[in-house]
Amino acid sequence: MKNELPPGAKMVFKGEVFEVWQWEQKMFDGTTHTFEKIKRPDSADVIAVVGDKILVEEQEQPHRAAFTCIPGGRCDEGEDPLLAAKRELLEETGYASDDWFPFRERIPFNSLVWTIHTFIARDCKFVKEPHLDAGERISVKLVSFDEFLELSQASDFRDQELASYLLRACFEPEFKEELKKKIFGVR
Amino acid sequence: MKNELPPGAKMVFKGEVFEVWQWEQKMFDGTTHTFEKIKRPDSADVIAVVGDKILVEEQEQPHRAAFTCIPGGRCDEGEDPLLAAKRELLEETGYASDDWFPFRERIPFNSLVWTIHTFIARDCKFVKEPHLDAGERISVKLVSFDEFLELSQASDFRDQELASYLLRACFEPEFKEELKKKIFGVR
Repeated sequence: MKNELPPGAKMVFKGEVFEVWQWEQKMFDGTTHTFEKIKRPDSADVIAVVGDKILVEEQEQPHRAAFTCIPGGRCDEGEDPLLAAKRELLEETGYASDDWFPFRERIPFNSLVWTIHTFIARDCKFVKEPHLDAGERISVKLVSFDEFLELSQASDFRDQELASYLLRACFEPEFKEELKKKIFGVR
Repeated sequence: MKNELPPGAKMVFKGEVFEVWQWEQKMFDGTTHTFEKIKRPDSADVIAVVGDKILVEEQEQPHRAAFTCIPGGRCDEGEDPLLAAKRELLEETGYASDDWFPFRERIPFNSLVWTIHTFIARDCKFVKEPHLDAGERISVKLVSFDEFLELSQASDFRDQELASYLLRACFEPEFKEELKKKIFGVR
């Protein structure tokens, strides 16, 4: 699945996070219409395995209600998503891993040029104190695989797209077994 | 759940569809940072019941792959979501109903000021030929309730947020029965 801007698209506004792009699109009846998409930095997030548990965050940010999420954040300009995932995990939680796998790549909305890259980091170790932004308050919690799946039905779980994936594992035993293997490896 | 702009927010760009808004946000350490959100027109869509079937669309738009969806579109400025849902159903499919219910209201992303209003329209009747935009090619299909639920696992189903809701009904018999009652009414 690709969600790219067409060759002739022009950036008409660049904000702090979001860019607005437009292009002239030929319609089915031959007329032309100005089409528009928003572009934002890709996200990189991490399913981090610590022993037989999965690391989740309880996070506060200014101007929104507290929420639960997995570690992750925006890729810096030109930054490789895997490097961004490693950086965010270390900054937000102080954990690091030498055992990384790509897990999923998702485009939540067609009108947003934005990809969420999710990685699995196995055998994570605490290596140093987290380094939080002024706009983050994060506490780390280790949960079992079953507790992790239950997050799919928690109203304060931020990662809605991941939630619908996890939800399937709550109900389909085969899918659940496969997911467990993907996250923890075959042991 | 609310997703509003804070009182001091200012619109810094207005495009064809999207607006960019910014405000100065006080951080946890007392510093101030420019925060940004995108605002777009709310959406209104419809689970339209025709006899014992549900109406779905196979739609083509310029510059994206064909997809399956339920009828619906953007609310015009100041337009009541229910009126928008009625208008979109009629324009896109030619169907109308006198029996409307609010079904769900969802905010897909915290950084997007955008609500999706979904309605149920029971006992829909075909009243006139559809009136399509130059950027739409739509064919209408009537599917059974079970086929409707299966859309939650179809990769070309556009309404991802609805899909994860329907997915739950695929696996939880009680939830499925409740949903069926909500859509078709108690008979």
